[in-house]
Amino acid sequence: MLHAVPLFMDIHRRVEGLTAEAVSAAHQQDLSIQARYGVRFIRYWYDEKTGKVFCLSEAPSPDAVAAVHRDGHGLLADEVIEVAEGAEPV
Amino acid sequence: MLHAVPLFMDIHRRVEGLTAEAVSAAHQQDLSIQARYGVRFIRYWYDEKTGKVFCLSEAPSPDAVAAVHRDGHGLLADEVIEVAEGAEPV
Repeated sequence: MLHAVPLFMDIHRRVEGLTAEAVSAAHQQDLSIQARYGVRFIRYWYDEKTGKVFCLSEAPSPDAVAAVHRDGHGLLADEVIEVAEGAEPV
Repeated sequence: MLHAVPLFMDIHRRVEGLTAEAVSAAHQQDLSIQARYGVRFIRYWYDEKTGKVFCLSEAPSPDAVAAVHRDGHGLLADEVIEVAEGAEPV
């Protein structure tokens, strides 16, 4: 599937004390400032037990994704990877 | 967001020689046998440059996810993590 805007998966390997409420609040902060960097956070997945978070976004660059996290809440991802998306056939 | 069926993100950190065609073919093999283990692969993301693949699935257990990959094409994920999903507000 081709995206006109690059797609990124960013990975936080271990956020200490992660809770559903905390990750939701951090995500809201990302959403509130993402337009500043031309980023759109689409969806995220997290695991309270291991503190892992995966965020899927459209952005002009990995630096733009990192900038939103930095300015939004300061929790920088360990990796920001440009990805292509595949889905199950419909 | 609550899922009646557990949701998993599995991560292949580095698949050697990864191409869009190869990952699509492997995914098709997963789809063709997933019902045997009660798994539904929903979507995946990959990066040809680093060989990383992320697969999102619904499954009864992490072992079931691993079993589909093992029987489908033999490329086991490095991690299979139960996750909760969050999305942008609509």
